[in-house]
Amino acid sequence: MSESNLIRRSVFFISDGTAITAETLGHSLLAQFPNVKFDIHIKPYVDSEESALNVVLEINSTAAKEGNLPLVFDTLVNPVVREIINTAHAVNLDVFEGLISKIETELDIKATTLVGQTHAVIDSEYYKARIDAVHFALDNDDGARTRHYDQADIILIGVSRSGKTPTSIYLSLQFGIRVANYPLTEEDLDDNRLPAVLRPHKHKLFGLMIDAERLVAIRTERKANSRYASFSQCQMELRAVEGIYISEGIPFLNVSEMSIEEISTRILQMTGLKRRIG
Amino acid sequence: MSESNLIRRSVFFISDGTAITAETLGHSLLAQFPNVKFDIHIKPYVDSEESALNVVLEINSTAAKEGNLPLVFDTLVNPVVREIINTAHAVNLDVFEGLISKIETELDIKATTLVGQTHAVIDSEYYKARIDAVHFALDNDDGARTRHYDQADIILIGVSRSGKTPTSIYLSLQFGIRVANYPLTEEDLDDNRLPAVLRPHKHKLFGLMIDAERLVAIRTERKANSRYASFSQCQMELRAVEGIYISEGIPFLNVSEMSIEEISTRILQMTGLKRRIG
Repeated sequence: MSESNLIRRSVFFISDGTAITAETLGHSLLAQFPNVKFDIHIKPYVDSEESALNVVLEINSTAAKEGNLPLVFDTLVNPVVREIINTAHAVNLDVFEGLISKIETELDIKATTLVGQTHAVIDSEYYKARIDAVHFALDNDDGARTRHYDQADIILIGVSRSGKTPTSIYLSLQFGIRVANYPLTEEDLDDNRLPAVLRPHKHKLFGLMIDAERLVAIRTERKANSRYASFSQCQMELRAVEGIYISEGIPFLNVSEMSIEEISTRILQMTGLKRRIG
Repeated sequence: MSESNLIRRSVFFISDGTAITAETLGHSLLAQFPNVKFDIHIKPYVDSEESALNVVLEINSTAAKEGNLPLVFDTLVNPVVREIINTAHAVNLDVFEGLISKIETELDIKATTLVGQTHAVIDSEYYKARIDAVHFALDNDDGARTRHYDQADIILIGVSRSGKTPTSIYLSLQFGIRVANYPLTEEDLDDNRLPAVLRPHKHKLFGLMIDAERLVAIRTERKANSRYASFSQCQMELRAVEGIYISEGIPFLNVSEMSIEEISTRILQMTGLKRRIG
């Protein structure tokens, strides 16, 4: 498809808070329209009449300039602000509308319409667990320390650049899981068995696997034309780790085609670890 | 409110993917009902008739046991799976319903109903930027290295335990921002000016501030009854950093009452840095 045939459309994500919910939902929906190029405008903290009016002006001028209606996703809680946004020249995709009234009816309770219950958030045990888990993941990244492994919920293992670090970070930040990770290096693999430091924690180990082609590509970005990034080296390391996973009975996952969100979700599903979320 | 008076209700988040969108949206909505204790069940990868039927059985048995209808948030794309979930004894909060058809009508294009465009995700420049940013944040955490500061989008500064590390991680993982962070220690503060290593990058600096009471509480969890966690020490450090922020003209934010999501969003807003998202 040539550039000129590409359908383009402006999209606004509007929130009285961080806009992360509007953005997350909007992206999931827009992914269903892969042939459209969306121009994204994010508007957090639209929490006053003045800021709402400014956003309406911006939407209207976008609509006039582009000759079509922008899509507007909003997760506004304040009814006054929401009313103002609804006056814009746009396709209004009010995410909360309908859903909130259905919940109110079923529970027979009115929604608070209070914006950002932040006090409640940062004082919750879930929030603290997430922050603690992030610090834990950083302290226990890449085999830096092994003496806290008794406090880990899970220990990710795998060859260099198989995705251990970003996955550890995601699991800790998003789900409050205490994750350590340990790289299986060539020395470890020569032995064809688990390094001694991992053996007492075998029940917590989870292995990452990756296709050799993908690993070559990732390592090449880091160190092009090195032995480290060569196909033969990658293949050798991967065969060795897979052998260890199988002979030791360690659960493992091929992450070649997966985003860190997906890897993390699959790991929770396979291990039975629970998301620590409020 | 006594435990017995607390209203409880089971909630299911159902998705044919990771369920992260359903969960994010559901939490935003449920936060509007602070007096209800929600029992949360997360069901990712409900992507076949069989798995959908199993979830229906679980919802129905929950409904029967608890004597009321569970709330069901779903972001299912597959119409067959969605139909099956809709048969459950539940209050169905179909997040995509309505929104997708509105977008289809406006764009005059049918949504793909394809689940999880993962290939597209992991090969996108946005995804790569996020993963690179996570590695950058870890490599440049806590003043560990300063030689890559020219490649940073932003350098967070502040006293120990003011939230630099979790904020760096969030900004990188969620928004693909390349963040370094540098702790202002007592030695730095004695001078009443910026450490030499930061001066060439002054335009990238962003300061975190926090109330002394909150810092005492956070440091006490780490090292109770230490000088480090004492009110006088915390107050002294905070006055000194605030003095530096003001005299050097460095933008800063008091994060005492903010979650990392909110700190990160405010920083982007104040600095004009753009979220690198697909």
